[in-house]
Amino acid sequence: MKVFGIFYKPGLKSIVDEFVQKLKKKNAHIVFLTSNEKEIEDHTDLTLVIGGDGTVLKAAKYVSSPIIGFKGGRLGFLSSYTIDEFDKFLEHLESNSFYEDKRQFFEVLELNSLYLNDIVAIREPHQKMLDINVKFKDGSFYFHADGIIISTPTGSTAYSLSLGGPILLPNVKAYVLTPIAPQFLASRSVILPDDEKISVETSFPSHLIVDGHDFGKFNKFSVRKSEKSITILRPLDYDFSKSIKEKMGYGKNYFK
Amino acid sequence: MKVFGIFYKPGLKSIVDEFVQKLKKKNAHIVFLTSNEKEIEDHTDLTLVIGGDGTVLKAAKYVSSPIIGFKGGRLGFLSSYTIDEFDKFLEHLESNSFYEDKRQFFEVLELNSLYLNDIVAIREPHQKMLDINVKFKDGSFYFHADGIIISTPTGSTAYSLSLGGPILLPNVKAYVLTPIAPQFLASRSVILPDDEKISVETSFPSHLIVDGHDFGKFNKFSVRKSEKSITILRPLDYDFSKSIKEKMGYGKNYFK
Repeated sequence: MKVFGIFYKPGLKSIVDEFVQKLKKKNAHIVFLTSNEKEIEDHTDLTLVIGGDGTVLKAAKYVSSPIIGFKGGRLGFLSSYTIDEFDKFLEHLESNSFYEDKRQFFEVLELNSLYLNDIVAIREPHQKMLDINVKFKDGSFYFHADGIIISTPTGSTAYSLSLGGPILLPNVKAYVLTPIAPQFLASRSVILPDDEKISVETSFPSHLIVDGHDFGKFNKFSVRKSEKSITILRPLDYDFSKSIKEKMGYGKNYFK
Repeated sequence: MKVFGIFYKPGLKSIVDEFVQKLKKKNAHIVFLTSNEKEIEDHTDLTLVIGGDGTVLKAAKYVSSPIIGFKGGRLGFLSSYTIDEFDKFLEHLESNSFYEDKRQFFEVLELNSLYLNDIVAIREPHQKMLDINVKFKDGSFYFHADGIIISTPTGSTAYSLSLGGPILLPNVKAYVLTPIAPQFLASRSVILPDDEKISVETSFPSHLIVDGHDFGKFNKFSVRKSEKSITILRPLDYDFSKSIKEKMGYGKNYFK
């Protein structure tokens, strides 16, 4: 892998410059270096992303080749190395020894938009609660709530988790449906197989937030599994459950 | 379908006798009629189960041909008709118009025992909390808790739900891992793909309850997807989400 692209979060340019120097010493060919996702090109062997999970989410939509995220401070769920571990990454690159972590994209049909984490339909603070009707192949659910999240396994550790949702291992082929502040007792998450199309209707237009990006107000949308998936390269010792334990202390041995 | 077996919950004999009269009028051949699961034979076209979900669970282990449950009062998750709907069933039988609801069995390797709902590892009331280590292909989780449940999608509406777990549609290919009274904040359910073997170790022997049956104390067990599945015949208008709405009011339109 010698043809690289680099996408970085504005403000991290100085770090990026260091990385570029080190890569050039390895005779790497860098075809793009930008903090503007529109300038990402999809003909590299590997796209390096310097920033948090949000930056990885942005870049992932534009590339089909593997991606590697570098984050300051602690690791995110989608980043594979901390910024301080760049030399470690270069060693792994030498021996091309990476674990391939495949993540599935989903799409919102009406917006013709992909997502890797979740789509959130939510009312504005001054509005009353939504009546939400969720239809799928084998049935339907109705919610009177502030909103609803339809999350991928990748997104299950994001907003859905904050609302009480379960943790899905990345290789589970399913959606997670989690209501936001539901009235009555319908507060549990529902897990649906990812080969079904899900259609949602709300009693009045609500904001559709797709991977953190607000697309404005709609009273109807439908999602299905996309043909697109992305491969995140990880160190060989990567273990999803380890990242859950480190980040949330979930299922961590406190007695060791 | 003319060759029937009938398995019933003790105490429901008089109802069963009525059913038998009606079936004989339809020239049905009844090869077994018992409330003792050991007497169930596996060469019928269809096994009728009169009783609750527990009775269906018992029968399902012994047959490979389809099963239909009849329950008094309200429907259970595994029953397809109420006892009062027997004539309706006979009509559906005439036209052989049923929806096939396939449910996957899982197995506990050490006990050589199948389960359709869940396996529960739990301490006795006088004992201290368990240290529980759960290993799977891609990682492990550790819990300090009263116990742990490994549930199938079918079992996700049983004990796991009572402990805060999500609802899985029957056709999701996954396990649900739900801790019982965990210390620290590891209280969320974890969803794992059903093609992985799960191994559990506890700091001291705990009761293993498999589909409600206590197998005694063990400090180790492992589960995997079984080759066995069972087909539950349903009325054509069967809809899992409807049964969830009826039974728990989950995602039900209260304004209609």
